[in-house]
Amino acid sequence: MNITLTQAEAITTTARTLATAHAVAAAFAVVDTGGNLVAFARTDGATLITIDTAIGKAFTAISVGGDSINLTPAIQPGGPLFGTGLVLAGSRSLVPYGGGVLIRAEGRVIGALGVSGAPTSDVDHEIAAAASAQVPALPSH
Amino acid sequence: MNITLTQAEAITTTARTLATAHAVAAAFAVVDTGGNLVAFARTDGATLITIDTAIGKAFTAISVGGDSINLTPAIQPGGPLFGTGLVLAGSRSLVPYGGGVLIRAEGRVIGALGVSGAPTSDVDHEIAAAASAQVPALPSH
Amino acid sequence: MNITLTQAEAITTTARTLATAHAVAAAFAVVDTGGNLVAFARTDGATLITIDTAIGKAFTAISVGGDSINLTPAIQPGGPLFGTGLVLAGSRSLVPYGGGVLIRAEGRVIGALGVSGAPTSDVDHEIAAAASAQVPALPSH
Amino acid sequence: MNITLTQAEAITTTARTLATAHAVAAAFAVVDTGGNLVAFARTDGATLITIDTAIGKAFTAISVGGDSINLTPAIQPGGPLFGTGLVLAGSRSLVPYGGGVLIRAEGRVIGALGVSGAPTSDVDHEIAAAASAQVPALPSH
Repeated sequence: MNITLTQAEAITTTARTLATAHAVAAAFAVVDTGGNLVAFARTDGATLITIDTAIGKAFTAISVGGDSINLTPAIQPGGPLFGTGLVLAGSRSLVPYGGGVLIRAEGRVIGALGVSGAPTSDVDHEIAAAASAQVPALPSH
Repeated sequence: MNITLTQAEAITTTARTLATAHAVAAAFAVVDTGGNLVAFARTDGATLITIDTAIGKAFTAISVGGDSINLTPAIQPGGPLFGTGLVLAGSRSLVPYGGGVLIRAEGRVIGALGVSGAPTSDVDHEIAAAASAQVPALPSH
Repeated sequence: MNITLTQAEAITTTARTLATAHAVAAAFAVVDTGGNLVAFARTDGATLITIDTAIGKAFTAISVGGDSINLTPAIQPGGPLFGTGLVLAGSRSLVPYGGGVLIRAEGRVIGALGVSGAPTSDVDHEIAAAASAQVPALPSH
Repeated sequence: MNITLTQAEAITTTARTLATAHAVAAAFAVVDTGGNLVAFARTDGATLITIDTAIGKAFTAISVGGDSINLTPAIQPGGPLFGTGLVLAGSRSLVPYGGGVLIRAEGRVIGALGVSGAPTSDVDHEIAAAASAQVPALPSH
């Protein structure tokens, strides 16, 4: 089961509202279970780095099967992925910081949301986690 | 002057309505004057190739300062760009086919729209041209 | 519905048997509906170019929603994609020649097979088409 | 002397059996002495990151002439490769963590195996090391 555009846009709309409440200009990206882009929006004033970073965070979450913030402890000194950092590689970037979260519906992963733009990636994660928790049911066709 | 997210989404909404009227599943991308992604949406059922192609068409238009369909004659035998074709390179792909158009407001280029998904790129161009002609005025803040 | 490894390997085994019957050393790649690699095998003596080409053919088929051989007329002089050729870009290469075919089960696309190594891509296509037509049913778990 | 597909598949079959015994969904990649892919399999449920990581671990082992786990101390503070981490670059990624091991036959390196998917890369290494130690003799043709 893959995320629909309707679901993806409902989630990014929620995330944008939350970001606005935080006075954060940011980029928002949703990828499907294959890691391929479904929806993207960058609010006015968000920096250019947020583009690849937001997409990369969503790709990272779907790629590792967990929220990207979970990688942060692993890349610290003594951690199993020490030395790994941001790897910008277009739409398939690895971003081991907060802001990429899995999106689930009916208990299954259907995609991932990436948020980039807040002063700290913890806030990106908060926004992404809150927004991704509000997945609308599949519209009846 | 750069396109705003509000303008970008108004244009992609128009393009999506037109595509639906053509029964076309497609991807829609808007880039700003720097060639950087502002808004993107891929409707359910659009193939994966539409992702990079739609973004690439918008990038191509802003990069060459004209609609991407204008490049098609140039790549033909005897043309000045003969031999050039689709070059997929993530968000900075060259796509010398119809579907990438400049977006203007008050006589100035403010961004570009890329559409990919129709059976022929001529239809992608038609949709993109019609949608980009309907730029909303900048919202008053 | 995505292809399983069991299904992917059954298909590549069939393709390898067919290639051997043609005395062809080749590479065989299966990707899922997201364009991500599931199974790969390169027989002894197959050239290095077959690696990215086989994976790219499978990716091309899933990306455009049709067999890669269907792109060949479109890239000819006068065709809508004239000028486009082989674009090697790792696992997401565009290969507009025969050898990449969709894999269907119960009427739905579940992945794609790419074959590269025969003296002509028409033979690659024949092998791929014959093999992909023999998808085993999902194993009962 | 280069690894054959028969040998590569015997090794990945062993590795897959070991992974199953550990209840690990994983990707398995074998490259030849040129660092080029020979065989690959991703078991159902393995995350997408395992694809490039497994291939990268095998490439890393053959590239540095030793098991990839040997790089982990070198990238620590004070180590000669401090600052180096995971570099995802398609089939030629650098992965300085456990799971990439050399494959030897008759005392000579004939290829490398990469395993990715276990909860820790130490387990990936264990599986890879155990599997690569069981290289079948070259089949008599």
